[in-house]
This record gives sequence, C-alpha cells and structure tokens, in this order.
Amino acid sequence: MSFFIPKGYRFSGIHCEVKPNTEKKDLALVVSDFPATVAGVYTQNLVCGAPVQLDRKRTPGEDFRLIITNSGVANACTGELGLQNAEKMVALTARELGFPEEKGLVMSTGVIGIQLPMDRIEKGIKMAVDALAPTLEGFCDAAHAMMTTDTVSKTACRTIVLSNGKTITIAGMCKGAAMIGPNMATLLTSLLTDAKLCPEDAQRLLKSAVDVSYNCISVEGHTSTSDTVLLMANGAADDVPLSGSDLEKFGEALKEICIDLAKMIPNDGEGITHLITIDVFGCKTESDAKIIAKTIANDALVKTAICGADPNWGRITSAAGRTGVLFDPMKVSLKVNGYLLYKDGTPVDFDKPAVSKDIRDHKDTHFELFLSEGEAKTRFWTSDLTMEYVRLNSDYTT
Amino acid sequence: MSFFIPKGYRFSGIHCEVKPNTEKKDLALVVSDFPATVAGVYTQNLVCGAPVQLDRKRTPGEDFRLIITNSGVANACTGELGLQNAEKMVALTARELGFPEEKGLVMSTGVIGIQLPMDRIEKGIKMAVDALAPTLEGFCDAAHAMMTTDTVSKTACRTIVLSNGKTITIAGMCKGAAMIGPNMATLLTSLLTDAKLCPEDAQRLLKSAVDVSYNCISVEGHTSTSDTVLLMANGAADDVPLSGSDLEKFGEALKEICIDLAKMIPNDGEGITHLITIDVFGCKTESDAKIIAKTIANDALVKTAICGADPNWGRITSAAGRTGVLFDPMKVSLKVNGYLLYKDGTPVDFDKPAVSKDIRDHKDTHFELFLSEGEAKTRFWTSDLTMEYVRLNSDYTT
Repeated sequence: MSFFIPKGYRFSGIHCEVKPNTEKKDLALVVSDFPATVAGVYTQNLVCGAPVQLDRKRTPGEDFRLIITNSGVANACTGELGLQNAEKMVALTARELGFPEEKGLVMSTGVIGIQLPMDRIEKGIKMAVDALAPTLEGFCDAAHAMMTTDTVSKTACRTIVLSNGKTITIAGMCKGAAMIGPNMATLLTSLLTDAKLCPEDAQRLLKSAVDVSYNCISVEGHTSTSDTVLLMANGAADDVPLSGSDLEKFGEALKEICIDLAKMIPNDGEGITHLITIDVFGCKTESDAKIIAKTIANDALVKTAICGADPNWGRITSAAGRTGVLFDPMKVSLKVNGYLLYKDGTPVDFDKPAVSKDIRDHKDTHFELFLSEGEAKTRFWTSDLTMEYVRLNSDYTT
Repeated sequence: MSFFIPKGYRFSGIHCEVKPNTEKKDLALVVSDFPATVAGVYTQNLVCGAPVQLDRKRTPGEDFRLIITNSGVANACTGELGLQNAEKMVALTARELGFPEEKGLVMSTGVIGIQLPMDRIEKGIKMAVDALAPTLEGFCDAAHAMMTTDTVSKTACRTIVLSNGKTITIAGMCKGAAMIGPNMATLLTSLLTDAKLCPEDAQRLLKSAVDVSYNCISVEGHTSTSDTVLLMANGAADDVPLSGSDLEKFGEALKEICIDLAKMIPNDGEGITHLITIDVFGCKTESDAKIIAKTIANDALVKTAICGADPNWGRITSAAGRTGVLFDPMKVSLKVNGYLLYKDGTPVDFDKPAVSKDIRDHKDTHFELFLSEGEAKTRFWTSDLTMEYVRLNSDYTT
C-alpha cells in the first residue's frame, strides 16, 4: 500500500539523549511551510502535563508553523519549571526557524515527575531543524521519534479528490504504548493535511473523529496525563477552506485515519495476544452503549478469559449488568466470533472446545452484545490481559 | 482468640456432590430455634441470580427460621427453572424442619449458567438437617460449605454487654473468592446474632455496616450476580428489641465484624502478594473520596506496580486525576507506607530502593492521599495484580 504525505510540510526525527543509554530517536519535528490552522483534543485527566496546558491554551487557532515532540520524559507533574520548559522548547524551535515564538505546539511523552534535560533538548532542536526534509523518510523518522515502548511506529493516510478536482492528503502519526505504557500509556497523535480548514471546522471534525476512535479504545482504562491529538491544516494543496460535501468527505476520512491509528494501540505492546472488538447493539442511547462497551473493555475477568481462549459469556453479560444502565436481562443475547453463546437471557448449548479453539487461533476476537431497548449502538476496541502485561508493568520505574 | 457463637442457632455443613469430583463441603444450613428478624443487602448487578431475586422479595422481615446455602453452582442466568429451584431449596428445607415454607432464605455461589442438581440438593438437605448442631464445630462446617476457591474460611465475632447486664453475640461467616472468583468473585455473608432487632433497625444498621466494609473493597471492580449479605437476629439472648445506646453499640460491633470479614477477601485468593489499604483525605464530600479511592483500587497500573514493589506515585496521583472529581492538583500529597513521595503537586526526592524494599518486605501496603478541598475522607481495601491472578483467571471454565 502506498503512503502519501501532505504537501507543504517538512519532517525530522533525531536522537539527542532524552532517552538515556540508547540510540533511539527521541525528538520529532513537524514544520509547515505555510501558516496552518491547528485544532487539539486533550486528556481529561485533571493532573495533566505542561505541554497539554500550553497547547490547550493555544488551540484551536491559526498561523501555526511547528509541532515539536519529545519522547523519554513526559514533562508532567513538574510544576512551574515544567511549564517554562514547555514554552522554551517551542520558542527555541521557532527562533531557530525564524517564526514567531507563540506559533508552535509541543508534545512530550515518557516518565513523569522528572524535568526535561533542556541542554540536550536545545542541542537536539538544532539537529532536528538541520534534518528537516519534505519526504516520507522524514515523516517516518518523526513517527519513530515519538515512540516509547511501542514495538511498531503507527501511521495512516488518506487522499481525497475535492469537487474542484484537486487532491488533498491527510497523514497521521501516532504513538500509544498500549499495555506497557511509560507510566500510563500515553497517546500522542499528529494529523497533518494540506487542505485548508477554518479553526472551528477543524476543532469540530477532530472532536467527532476522536469520539469514535481514541475514545473507543481501552487498555486498562487509565487516562494519561499527556494524551494529545493535534490536527494541522496548511492549505498547501488548495488554499480555499473546505466546505459542503468536501468538508464532509474530509471529516469521514479523518475518522477513518483516527480509527486506523487508534486500533493499532491495543493491538501493540508486548504481552498482548488478542485485539478484542466489542459491538453493543440495541441500546436506548449511544451513551448507554458506550458505558456498557467500556465496562466490558476494562473488565479484568473478561480480558483474562480471552487471554485463556475461554468463551466465558457469564463474565461479559455480568459486566454489562453491573454498569447501572437499565435493560431487560431476559432480552440479552451474545455472540463471540460469530458463535451464539447466550440468547434471550439464557445460555445456549454451544460447542465450547470449538469456540475456544476459534479464539485461540485468531488474534482478532469479536463480541456482539444484543440488547432490546432501542436502536443505539457503539463499537469499542480493547486488548486481553496477559501474564506478560503484569510482568512488564510490575517493574517499570524501579 | 476465643470465638463465640450466638445462642438459639444450630448449624451444619455437608458434602452432597454439588461440587463434582471432590469431598469438599457444598451445602450449609443455619437454623434459628426462634422466629428471627432478617435484613439483606444484595448485588446491584441488573443480571442477578435466582436466590438474590427470592431473598430480595422476602427481606427485611420477621419470623425467619433458616438460611440454606450451596456452593459449586450459582443458580444465576438460569431463567424460570432457576427461580423455581431456589424456592424449592427453601421449601424442602423448611418442610424437613417443620417450618412454614416461606420462612427461609437461600444463597448460592459457583459456576453460573447451569441448573442446580436438585436430586443431590434434596438428599443433601436431609443430611444437613440431620447434622445440625448448636456448636462451634457446626458453625465452622457451615462456613466451610460456603467456600468456592477461598483458601481459608472467613469468620468473625463480637460480644456486647447490654445496659441491662445481658451479653449478646454476633458471629459472621463469609465467602469471597477474591481474585480467582468462580466466574465473578461472588461474596456471601451470614451474620447471626442472639440480640433482638426490629426489621427497620436491622436493615438500617446492616446497610451502614456494608457501606464502610463490603462497599469499600475491590479486587477487579466486578460486581457479582450473586453478592448477598444477610443479618439474622433471633433474640435468644434477650428478647427485647435493642434501642438507644445498646442499638448504637450493636451497630458499631456490626461494622467491625463486616470490616474484619471484608478485608479477608482481597487478602485471600492465590496470586495475591499485597493487601493495599487506601486512605483518601481532604475531599469536599465522602462521595468524592470514595470515587477517588475506588478508582485507585481498580487501577491495573497501580496494582501491578505494587506487585512489583514499585513506589510509582505517578500512577496513583494520575488515577486520582482521571476520576472527574475536581481538586487542585498543586495541593496533592501522597505517602506510601509512611514515606512522603509527593508533596503539593511536586515529586519529593525520596530513597526509592528503601521504599521499594519496604513494600516488598510487607504484605500490607498503605497509601495515604491528601487533598485540600475539605474534611471528607474514606478508607478502601484492594489487592495487587499478579501474574498468578492472570494465570488462574485465564482458565476457569474451559
């Protein structure tokens, strides 16, 4: 599959020793050659990192030129000095590039509670500026430099032909350390497009896309202090702001990219053996469906059962029952990997070894839970819970 | 420590092959020689077992004579036949003892989704009636017969001298399979006293006691379909209903017993290496404190950190931050096992190897989280998350 990058951007990813004792890249730079609109969606955790505080103030907005991102140190729980360092990271990069100091954004991921090594970051910024290139290689370097314990870099793209015949591109890079997160499985994403968007449209479409993607994945239900998704739109392919059916198409493509990227998170991380897709149907409201799907997605008993290839329908239906959402338990049915295990509140006599083998033989597991309260539905993704997860998370900082 | 049982009760616990391929006891009977008041608190799971549905209808009430309990099969998700079987279990026992059929209660725990083996239960009831004895041995047999994957039987007692000089006794037996629950870690408790209580007082005091005990423990946050706590009061030691300071004293003793029993649950179960006590101080409301404590208690990243003796304060403060409860993050402090790790929103430079060793060397771990929003506080108990937990829960039914 070909990968396309949007026009009017330069990228780099370099190593400047924020991550000690490794050669791994730890500083990513994305520069727009044109003033760009940026929208942002951030962690809802009250305890949030300095970069989140800074970006939240600046977005949505216009005329942005750069996103500087480091991995290795999250710059969270770092007080006043942390905030100053986040601002300084952006200002140093902007100065190096000749842009106004406030026209940049910053993301950080890694260990929390320690300060950024600003001397090394400062040297790194010069290196990153020197390395900038408008190429796929540069894009991939940047994607790599965001990674912490990710085992693969996560990228996705879409192109759209507008009604005026012009082609625009959206490309996204994402890091999400899934189960073996650096303290708390931080999620960072940069979505870059050469379409033009006004800040209000950018913010609205980004919010909608995040709602059906990043807000529908779960590893252990822990919202990081640093989760950030940024959408940058520079108009390099077409400088007329999108509207009408073009805007709609763009919104759909953005959703698709976000779902592609979001699913890569529970699918990554050592220790995982299954990616579980949870469909909940027949709810009164979408909010009810989400509560049920999320509760199942976070349930340790459900997740360990799938790890053991155990078609334990009781854990799934009982997780739905404990949510507080009202439904008729005698009108609940459940399929796992297409096999009907539970119908109208009653267990079905199914071939347990066959279903167990089916779960064991496939990395993808599919739950379909059917209620009879209405037409609302949702889809969620999660991973199973394995011994390897516990081993990896038992000794992260010490 | 001496153990006292209340007057006017007979107990038995026998094996009747509800649990196949074992000699383990699986049917427990408690009989009151006097008509007794019973109050009950039940699971809030919408999907609940047949015994819960039956007991919920009958309590609080008076003139009860028996509680029949089986382990091995939960009689949950068993439809209309399950309800009939629950009623039949009580009726058969009552008939055998010469009591009215509706004056009994029933509890079941074990695998869900299969029907009770009523022929074996029926034979078992006769054996249990024959074995009844007003002795500590009978009490212990009954406590054993409730167990599923519990590694120890769980009992507690208190005696109180009333203002009239008479002594009354409360004794409790509890099963809670903690992390390696039979599908979902069901909790059952019978609390028996020879004091006299009116149904309203019994219900009110039981509710208060459960709120500070069973509602403050968590293993993986999964509310079972079958959780049941019953309080039976027969007045054999003093047939005047408790009131005034005696009633208050009784309420306090009931809380103590419930806390004793509740703490035994996360403390039991193979796979556990730490019992974690979570104190949250300085909240605006007790409800805020509970939300924070419960979120920390259920957080897989917090629980794996303690398993690894990792004083990872970031995971604890971040769990508090993601609850939705509003507080000033710059006024948060945290102690683990008495060591100050985080003060006023800033990490403290502490001796990490020493704290890690302290966690590793003690089964009890103590978190103290200090906010500055008010005077409300709470205490919660949970267990750590270990590889053994995952191993055990990965293959329960298959």
